[in-house]
This record gives sequence, structure tokens and C-alpha cells, in this order.
Amino acid sequence: MSKSASASQADDLHKLRHSLAHVLAQAVTKLWPDTQITIGPPIEYGCYYDFLFAKPISDADFPAIEKEMRSIIHQGQTFRCDTLTPKEAIVYWKKQKQPFKVELVEDLVKNEGVKEVTHYVNIGPRREETFTDLCRGGHVENLREIPVDAFKLMTLAGAYWRGDEKREQLTRIYVAAFPKKEELDAYLLIQEEAKKRDHRKLGKELDLFCFSEIVGAGLPLWTPRGTLLRDLLDDYVWELRKAKGYNRVTIPHITKKELYETSGHWAKFKDDLFRIQTRDGHEFAMKPMNCPHHTQIFASRQRSYREMPQRYAETTMVYRDEQTGELHGLSRVRCITQDDAHVFCRPAQAKNEILAIWEIVDTFYATVGFGQLRVRLSLHDPDAFEKYLGTPAMWKHAEDELRSIAKERKADFFEAPGEAAFYGPKVDFIAKDAIGREWQVATIQLDINMPERFDLSCISESGEKERIVMIHAAIMGAIERFLSIFIEHHAGLFPLWVAPTQVGILPVAALHEDYAREIEQKLQAAGIRTKFFDHTESLGKRIREGETEKIPYLLVMGDNEVDAKSVTVRNVTTKKQVVVSVEEFVERTVGDVGERRLKASIG
Amino acid sequence: MSKSASASQADDLHKLRHSLAHVLAQAVTKLWPDTQITIGPPIEYGCYYDFLFAKPISDADFPAIEKEMRSIIHQGQTFRCDTLTPKEAIVYWKKQKQPFKVELVEDLVKNEGVKEVTHYVNIGPRREETFTDLCRGGHVENLREIPVDAFKLMTLAGAYWRGDEKREQLTRIYVAAFPKKEELDAYLLIQEEAKKRDHRKLGKELDLFCFSEIVGAGLPLWTPRGTLLRDLLDDYVWELRKAKGYNRVTIPHITKKELYETSGHWAKFKDDLFRIQTRDGHEFAMKPMNCPHHTQIFASRQRSYREMPQRYAETTMVYRDEQTGELHGLSRVRCITQDDAHVFCRPAQAKNEILAIWEIVDTFYATVGFGQLRVRLSLHDPDAFEKYLGTPAMWKHAEDELRSIAKERKADFFEAPGEAAFYGPKVDFIAKDAIGREWQVATIQLDINMPERFDLSCISESGEKERIVMIHAAIMGAIERFLSIFIEHHAGLFPLWVAPTQVGILPVAALHEDYAREIEQKLQAAGIRTKFFDHTESLGKRIREGETEKIPYLLVMGDNEVDAKSVTVRNVTTKKQVVVSVEEFVERTVGDVGERRLKASIG
Repeated sequence: MSKSASASQADDLHKLRHSLAHVLAQAVTKLWPDTQITIGPPIEYGCYYDFLFAKPISDADFPAIEKEMRSIIHQGQTFRCDTLTPKEAIVYWKKQKQPFKVELVEDLVKNEGVKEVTHYVNIGPRREETFTDLCRGGHVENLREIPVDAFKLMTLAGAYWRGDEKREQLTRIYVAAFPKKEELDAYLLIQEEAKKRDHRKLGKELDLFCFSEIVGAGLPLWTPRGTLLRDLLDDYVWELRKAKGYNRVTIPHITKKELYETSGHWAKFKDDLFRIQTRDGHEFAMKPMNCPHHTQIFASRQRSYREMPQRYAETTMVYRDEQTGELHGLSRVRCITQDDAHVFCRPAQAKNEILAIWEIVDTFYATVGFGQLRVRLSLHDPDAFEKYLGTPAMWKHAEDELRSIAKERKADFFEAPGEAAFYGPKVDFIAKDAIGREWQVATIQLDINMPERFDLSCISESGEKERIVMIHAAIMGAIERFLSIFIEHHAGLFPLWVAPTQVGILPVAALHEDYAREIEQKLQAAGIRTKFFDHTESLGKRIREGETEKIPYLLVMGDNEVDAKSVTVRNVTTKKQVVVSVEEFVERTVGDVGERRLKASIG
Repeated sequence: MSKSASASQADDLHKLRHSLAHVLAQAVTKLWPDTQITIGPPIEYGCYYDFLFAKPISDADFPAIEKEMRSIIHQGQTFRCDTLTPKEAIVYWKKQKQPFKVELVEDLVKNEGVKEVTHYVNIGPRREETFTDLCRGGHVENLREIPVDAFKLMTLAGAYWRGDEKREQLTRIYVAAFPKKEELDAYLLIQEEAKKRDHRKLGKELDLFCFSEIVGAGLPLWTPRGTLLRDLLDDYVWELRKAKGYNRVTIPHITKKELYETSGHWAKFKDDLFRIQTRDGHEFAMKPMNCPHHTQIFASRQRSYREMPQRYAETTMVYRDEQTGELHGLSRVRCITQDDAHVFCRPAQAKNEILAIWEIVDTFYATVGFGQLRVRLSLHDPDAFEKYLGTPAMWKHAEDELRSIAKERKADFFEAPGEAAFYGPKVDFIAKDAIGREWQVATIQLDINMPERFDLSCISESGEKERIVMIHAAIMGAIERFLSIFIEHHAGLFPLWVAPTQVGILPVAALHEDYAREIEQKLQAAGIRTKFFDHTESLGKRIREGETEKIPYLLVMGDNEVDAKSVTVRNVTTKKQVVVSVEEFVERTVGDVGERRLKASIG
């Protein structure tokens, strides 16, 4: 398919979804005439519209709304575009008792200085006006073009008017909409699967993390099982880094604001920080990132070229003052653990350092089950250079370097202007999960600006001060967010080496318990994490329990096993069942764990 | 010596030091008549006096002050006690232009409702009045009793009037004072030794940690070498705990204030917390301790007796809003790492859990070089029961339990009423360092109150809810403070297994470098941390460098060593030098490290 054909399809889909938002608002205001309307844009999988209802509605009202929408579509309405002066538009919306629309027109005048606005009016088959919206256009010719079997009202959500928690709380209705019923069905199926895999649900069922009302929203507490999972993954990242010459450092989680005034974060992100007034009257902040602190370790003594590169790694928490409404499970939290690292190196060393990190990223993601990652080269936006630190020449050089490395690694990469950090371009890695969703995960950032701002240098062979560069690199990135992806990708059935409980032990009856305890001891001595299911429940019930707890192996042992010094192994992932000797089970399990194999090899 | 004789000696020493503070103030006001005087109490090793000088003085002025003090003592002045009404005293001090004394008298009236105050007046040999101070008494009969060769002006320090940073900054003069010259000399020798071992000096020289002005005071940044030291010690604590069935958990560093309202910390410690107003308008705080968060993990599901005890361990930072003037190196910081743990158990399980922790404490401190610890049983103050949570019966039971455990362990313990935490009694462990100073280190606290406040229970065998108890236990305690003690105790010459660099490699000349590199590789492959000193400097200079860096072993290799496949080992602690084969060196070093031996066994 040619690019223009694809672009035109995207445009058609946009028109369809945008038109459907009008239909939704038309249906809602017909059913509840005193509803105030606001805006309704198309989104990735359909559209939404934000309303202020006089009385709250619920998803029990969805069938009635959908029925009304279908009826509107069947009428074959068309759109008429009216051009008005802002004054005329304001008079119109005041008369309609739609104050949000009045505010929108007023703001268009104030912020963009518009001299005219457009209204799109739905015209019914008998030429009557049925619904009017303030809109910039982009619709289907006739509403009949919208397939009535390829959309579905999905959810209700709260949303502040203009995203401002001090303004009215609106009700947002999300609609899934596609050109064909099959596409909608496929989308719904993925949604259904995603719901089953929802990390918030699995996190609770598998006892990985919890929230407490008195600790607060967006602040997960990690249980022993969840902490084990985090630590095993993080230990692996550290093992990979250690082999590349990294050292761990440790920094406090707070700082005087002066650190961020120097780094430039204060000017850009001050409102997103948790800020603290100390009793001495200093202004402190909780760290939203680690790089400024790490520069201070580098800068604590003058470095010689012989000591370069300095590679600092630290898994530590950063903090963001997110609005409560924006929080979501582990995906969006207020307290974020980063497996962060910063390399301080000479410009000529940057390429090798980036290649080494890239290798760690590829190894890690392959091991944890994501295969090959897509790569986004996040570059600066040439039309908004004022958003960035540094000069165009510095940026060109850094971006060229990253591009050449991506080519050299033969990566599956694309370029994204405008996606750079304010201090330098980035390589962002994108993982695809088991149900086809894409997630940005690791990142490597080449930073040519912090070293200037903090005056970081080393003494070169010739005894001169040489400006260094910094590389920022996270492998899992935000560990909470990574784990939300990891849990959903594996649907809670983790690779053996990270499973909080690796083996369930199920003696058939009381007389097999001694044998079972013997095996448990052997496994524990070999460092395997076990759980003993004693015979007070039926075997069938215990097996179901072990499956619900997503324990990779369940070992059943009765008379035959005791006699043969064997175990019957149920592989909970493959659902296969095999009999092996105890020695073989221990040896192969230890081997699979030691090698961090993705799939447990027995059964 | 009988107890009363010892008490009377202590009283005599107190009188001597208190009298010397008068002499100091008398000398200072004679030398600088426009100095304002405040207060001057006796302290552990002498006394101090706080002054407001018209022009700053320096320690260059110490000889002149000491000379004047000796001259006053030689005169054989005595004290006369005058009783005045507060009004008379205020008139007197106003006339003397001593506003701090006026304030003190006013406050005595306001806060204690005194009807009379006492002035102590130094009377010279010719009966003239030489110096007057507002004072409650407790002096020598004649100043000649103060030995003129057993005191010494030590240091100048800034101190806020009344410890309030909003009031005047005064100059404090510290004086060391003892009954005999030999005691002063012994004290000065220890001070001299302590100065050499000062962890702030060694921390810099050994590149363990640093501070940054733009990050702020009291917020240490840990370099790769310092982090390694911290992590090795903490890993060891974890190894000991893991063997006792502990699990790691992970909590956020902030919380809504509601958590501390429930725990009782808010009412008691609100002003010591770093508090945060979020953009949503919540009041958050940075955690000053971890127990309230940990209760929320325990409380996230109803526990059965089968799951008890739950043992949570976490090395994590807590925060205190300390005043800048109170900060000191690593000993007093704003951001404190605790190797914290909480056991949630049935009351009947508490004893075994405490014994298990006690065993960890004893093992850890013996391994890191502190031998046997003294133990303080920190009990509640029966005269101030309102400071504590819970009932007298709960306290009696808990305190009896700790006392019986201390006896069972045959510990070297003493009881300290008034030293308990507000939620329960404690076992505090006290280590003595290489120069005889005592430091409180580990702690075990039996908590009968948090479980009530958070309503923590398990379901017992009979299906009833049973109230549990909590045990708080830190092994190193505050890791920063522990490291200040550990660094000074070892004077930076750490046991081999925690030394950031374990072995220095020094080829005599260029032609021995290949052999040296070979040995370096063998050591690194065995996990030994090495540093290569290439031959560009003289051997003598390199050896001195290695000694300054306090690397436990320096390996020298020249012709003989190359021929014999050996190394000459300089043991930097013992200063001994021996020749051993490369194989033996590697094997014994790996063994010493693996066994965490206190003394490196070669040389």
C-alpha cells in the first residue's frame, strides 16, 4: 500500500470517528435535553465526548444512547457548515444555555484572535436542523457512511473541564469505532483479554503489591512476593551492567532547589515537583530525576582522562506530583523506581558506551520475553528550538551520532522529531506485548547540555580541561510501569526464574507427606522457592489453587512416585504432565533458573 | 569503690567544671569588657560558656584567655551567694548591659514563678568583687581547688541563643577540664587520635562520600567506593536475616498524613517531618520511619495463624528536618538509610523472634570488629506515663519479657527508665570503639501499641481474631551513623571483605608489567577488587600511595617474583611483608573474603 493511500485511509477513519462524536452528542442531548456539551475529539480506537449531565448517568444507559445513535445514522443526516462572527456564535450558545461553548468561543478570540468561527449543523432528511456544534470540520459526507455495527460505547470516566482540577468535573463517554464490524470485534477481544490480564487485578490475586487509603493513591506498597519479583529483575539488570564496568552510587531523595536551578529542571518542571519548605527556611524538592545528583558525585573531584568513563548505576525512587485523577495502577504513580544509570565520558567514548547499553537492552528484553524491540530515534523539534538547551550544532552532532549507531546495529528504527528530552536526543525502545500492544520501555539519552551547565570536565592527556558528555540510560525505566507491562504480557505466569513461588508440592495423601517434605528440603537447599499444599484439601482443589496462584510447576506425589523416587510434574504454562526422577527435576529446574530460561523445560 | 563515694566524686567534678565556667566568663569579660554573657554549664569532659562578642575572636586568642583564667585561679577567689528579688536582679543586669541575663530572670519569673534568684559573686583576695553571675550554685570553696594544669580551651563553635535559629548567634567556647593533668593528657590523646580518624576527613581521602553545596548540608552523596562499602555491609545483614526467614518489602518514601495520625507520629513528631502540600491539596510527609508503612502491607489481607510470623526487612531512607547547625558529617544527617525490619507475630512467638534478632546482632558486630556489645534495656519513665501509648499492664508485660530474654542470653545489660520508644520498650546495643568511645548501634523494640492503633490481627486456630505484636529491629540502625562509627573504629583500614579496593598491584619495573597484569586478571576472575599502580612512579612512592589509600594488601613483583611465580605481599595493617605463591595468595584471599575474616591472614 502506498503511503498516500494509507494517509487517506487514516483521514477517512478520523472523519468517521469525529462524525460519530457529533452523533453521540446529538443522541445525548436528545435523551437529556438539559445536558451541557463541551468537546469530543477522535482518539486512537474511536472517540469520546465530555458532558455535564444534570443528573448522573450510568453505563446502564448505554443501550438507549446507542439505539438513539443508530437511529440518527439511519436517517442519513448531512453536515452544513455555517460561518459566524464570534459575537454571533456567543449569542447563539448563550441562547442554547451552553456556557462551555461560550467559553470556547471567547478563548478562541482571546488566544488565537480569530475573526470567525464555524458551526457544523446536522441536517435531517427533511432538511430540518437537528444538532449544531462548534467545530473546525472534517466529517463524513453523510452519516450513513458510519457502519452502525462497528461502534460500541465502552466506558464512563470522570474528567475535569480543561484538565483543571479546580474546574467542573465532567462525564466522559468513550466510544470504540472502526470501519468494519470485524475490526471492532478484534478490538473488543483484545480488550477482553487485556481485562483478564489487568495488572491491578493480577497484582492483588498474586499478592504482588497493594495500596492503602491512609498512605494514599498512586503509592504502591510492595509485598514480599512483589519485592522478590522486582529485585530479581533488577539484580539481572545489575549483573548485565556490572559486566560492562558500572558502579553503584547512592544519593539522597531530596535536594535544595539550587541543584535544579543549575540543571534547568526548576524552570521547566517546578510545578510537577513535590516541594518542601524546611524549618530553616530553605526550599527543597523531592527528586524527579537522578541525573543532577549524579553530576555532583562526578564533580566531587577533578577527574583525569585515565578515570574516564565513570559509569554510575542506581535503582532509586523519583517523585512526581501527579493529579489523583491521572493515577492508574502501576502505570501512573507518584513514586517511581528507576533503574537509572549515567555514564560520564569523553565525547569520543560515547559511541562505545551507547553500544554497550544497547547490548544490555537487547539481552534483557529477549530474556524477559519481549523478543526484538522497535526503536524510536527521538529528535528535537526544529520548529520549536526554544524548548531545548544548547545550540543547533550540538544537537546536529548528537543526533547524527545516534542515527549512525542505530544504522550500525541494524535496528528496526524510525525517527520522531519533537520527542527528544530538553537536554538531548534519545533512543527509545518499544516492546510489543502478547496481545499486540506497544509500550515504550528502555531509553538511552545522549546529553550534551548538563555537562555545560554543571561545568563537567576531565583533564586530557595534554593537561587541558576537556568538556565531557553524559549518557542517561534506564533498562526497565520506571520499574512500576515496566512491571505493569511485564505482568500483563505474561498474564501473571512468569518465567520460572522470577516466579515468586517456583514449585508447588502436593502429596496425594497423608502417608506421602514425609516424602514430599524430603523433596521440599532438597529444592529449598538448591535455592528453589516452594510452597507446600498439605493434604487437608482434595488433590483437585489443590491443583486448581496452584494454577490460580500461577506457580510454574506443581509436583504431585503418591504411591507410584514414592516407590520410584520420582515426581509427577504439572507444567502450569503448557498444561502438560510428565514423570521425572527427583534428581532430574532438581537439576533441570536449577539449570533453567540459573540460565534464566524463558520457558521451564519440563513438561 | 562504694556507690556513694563514686557519686560524691562525680559531684566534686561537677563543681570543679561549673566553677571553671565562671572563671572563663570572668576572664573573657575582663579581656573584652563589652562582651555579653549568657550561660555556661558543665559537660561530659569539661564545660562551655556562650558569649556574644562585640568583635569576633578566634582560637588565636585562647592563650590569652587561658593565661587570664590561671591568674584568676591563682588569686584564690571565693564565691559569695547573694539572694535578690527578680526585680532587683533585673535592675542589676540592665545596669551591667547584660540583656541575656535580664531575659533569663524574666523567664524564671514567667515560667517558674520564682520569687527570688541567686547571684554568685567572685570575691578576690582583697575582698573586692571581681565577677557576678546569675547561678543556682554548686561551686568549689576556693578557685585554687581548680588545678591550673588540668584544663584546656578546646574549640570555638557557633550556637544560637536558646538553640533557636531565629535568635542571636553566639560564640561557644568549649573547655576540657579534669581533676588531674594525667586525665587531661589522656583525654587530649584520645581527641588527637579521634581527629586522625575523623570520618569526615577519611571519607574524603578514601573517596567514600561527598557533599554538594547545591544539594545541601546533611545530604551525603555516596561515591562508587562508599556505596560498595554500604552495600557489602547491608548484604551481610540481609544474608543473616534471610537465614532467619525474613522477606524484603518495598514502600514509597511519602504518605498522606493520615497514616501518621493513625500511628500517633503526627501528634508527636509533626515538626520534625518534611511536609508537602500536593497540588491536589493533600498534606503529605516524607517518612521519618518505616513501621507505619509496613503495617499497611501486613494489613492488606487478613492473615491466618499459619502465615505468622510475617517478617519484613527493608533498607530504605527516612527523613528528618534537622536544623543546619545540628548537622555533623554522617553522624547527623537529614536523609538516613535504615536497615529496618518489622516482625508481625503472635504474642507467644515474640520471644523466639527477639532471640533470633539478638543472634543476628551479636554475629554481625563480632564480624565487623566490635566484639561483645553492652546492652541497655530502655524502659518507660514511670513518672511521665503520659508520654507513652498503651496501658501500664501492657508495658509491664513487655518490659518483663525483654528483661527475661536479656537474662537468658546472659547479656551484659543495664536498665534505663525513660529511654523507651513511645510505643514500647527497647533493647539498645552499645558498641565500644577502638579508642574507647561508646556508641548506641542496633536496637530491638517490642511494640504493643501500633498493632492496637492499626487493628492488626491474625485468625487463630479457633477461628477468632487475635491481636498480634510487632517487633522493630535495625542491625546497623542508621547506616550513615553506623558508617561514621565503623570508619573511625577501623581508622579507614577496613577488614578485607569490605575494603573497596582489596589488593594493590605494583610491578617493580616495566618488564614486570605483563606478569602483574596476569595476576590482576586471576584476582579479578576470583572476584577480588584490585588497583593497578603502573611503574611511572617510583616503587616507594606507589607503596606510600597504596598505604594512604588503605588498601589491605599491596603486591610487589620484580624479577624474583616473576621467576618463582610468587608475589611479595605487604599487609598494610600489620606492616608485615611475606612472599607467597600466586596460587596461595588467591586461595587464601578468596577464603578470607568468603569467611568475612576480620584480619587478613597473610603477613
